[in-house]
Amino acid sequence: MKIIAVGGTGTLGTAVVKELSKRHSVVTAGRNSGDVRVDITDAKSIEKMYQEVGKFDAVVSTTGNVHFGEFTKMTSENYFVGLNNKLMGQVNLVIVGLRYINNNGSFTLTSGMLSDDPIRNGSSAAMVNGAIDSFAIASAIEMPRGIRINAVSPTILTESVDAYGDYFIGFAPVGAARVAVAYSKSIEGAQTGQVYRVW
Amino acid sequence: MKIIAVGGTGTLGTAVVKELSKRHSVVTAGRNSGDVRVDITDAKSIEKMYQEVGKFDAVVSTTGNVHFGEFTKMTSENYFVGLNNKLMGQVNLVIVGLRYINNNGSFTLTSGMLSDDPIRNGSSAAMVNGAIDSFAIASAIEMPRGIRINAVSPTILTESVDAYGDYFIGFAPVGAARVAVAYSKSIEGAQTGQVYRVW
Repeated sequence: MKIIAVGGTGTLGTAVVKELSKRHSVVTAGRNSGDVRVDITDAKSIEKMYQEVGKFDAVVSTTGNVHFGEFTKMTSENYFVGLNNKLMGQVNLVIVGLRYINNNGSFTLTSGMLSDDPIRNGSSAAMVNGAIDSFAIASAIEMPRGIRINAVSPTILTESVDAYGDYFIGFAPVGAARVAVAYSKSIEGAQTGQVYRVW
Repeated sequence: MKIIAVGGTGTLGTAVVKELSKRHSVVTAGRNSGDVRVDITDAKSIEKMYQEVGKFDAVVSTTGNVHFGEFTKMTSENYFVGLNNKLMGQVNLVIVGLRYINNNGSFTLTSGMLSDDPIRNGSSAAMVNGAIDSFAIASAIEMPRGIRINAVSPTILTESVDAYGDYFIGFAPVGAARVAVAYSKSIEGAQTGQVYRVW
């Protein structure tokens, strides 16, 4: 298969690309790195990426920013960072990609466990992750041409403990290589409308 | 208790106000009707509503629009209708209301079962409902001054079957009066960070 990995140079993305590259041709895409450049907040930039890459069988997204901040200080603008970027950025990859993806292709988005297992400062991340999971569940039943969609919801990565571990005390980290196989299940399996929780 | 019911003149809102009025003083708020006027997409309008009402113990919201449409025709703008209105409108009621609500007060938002049990044309509703549920779960753990927050996730109302029933074939409708008691549980109970599914 030919797979586009958006965010394929991040911590998780690198592991996903390594896992998928064993069996597939992977094109990495990112804002500042990767085989092609894309700004997921800009539908035109996404369109350009798809035209550049040509026909493909799967899109895997391991990208998206949200604002972390103390709940009592959060503003509407703070929430819109995540809505515009991690949520609608990934949704744009799907709704634009629908015009370019091969029959029986798949989209795999990334949410995260904070939707169900929250931490301090994580109300925006939780909101966005819950939205992504439900978007995958709902859009799956209307996908045309045999196209599928799933979400992977990871916990904190072992590789991220040094940087963020203090916010996730009591959470058992999972290695990026283990999380990565969930993306293979989504792409190479036959399921759709699923949330693969790797907690 | 003194309770502000935003959307208190809609189908569900009317039933919620009837239920709560048995034991409490309820102020209804709406865009075009109710005791006070409020546009939930406008933080300044929300601020004005809270200042007009004075101190209160609970906010219950049964309001918010989303765009329903065939998934393959949905645009980014279509999704933002629900993100701006049903999602961030209700979130604004909370983050602005935090400055006015009494100690040990509560917020009760409305999501809906489409996040988990989707229908055709409902990808935006699903996204928004999932976001609301996770926002309630996550913001609950950071609420100051004993303040609580829950979401009620109703299925289609018996009262709405004539208008929307064709989109919900196979879903067992629930009467608005039954859904309304879930709001009483949220307001008068002690739980927080819960999603009350009335399916």
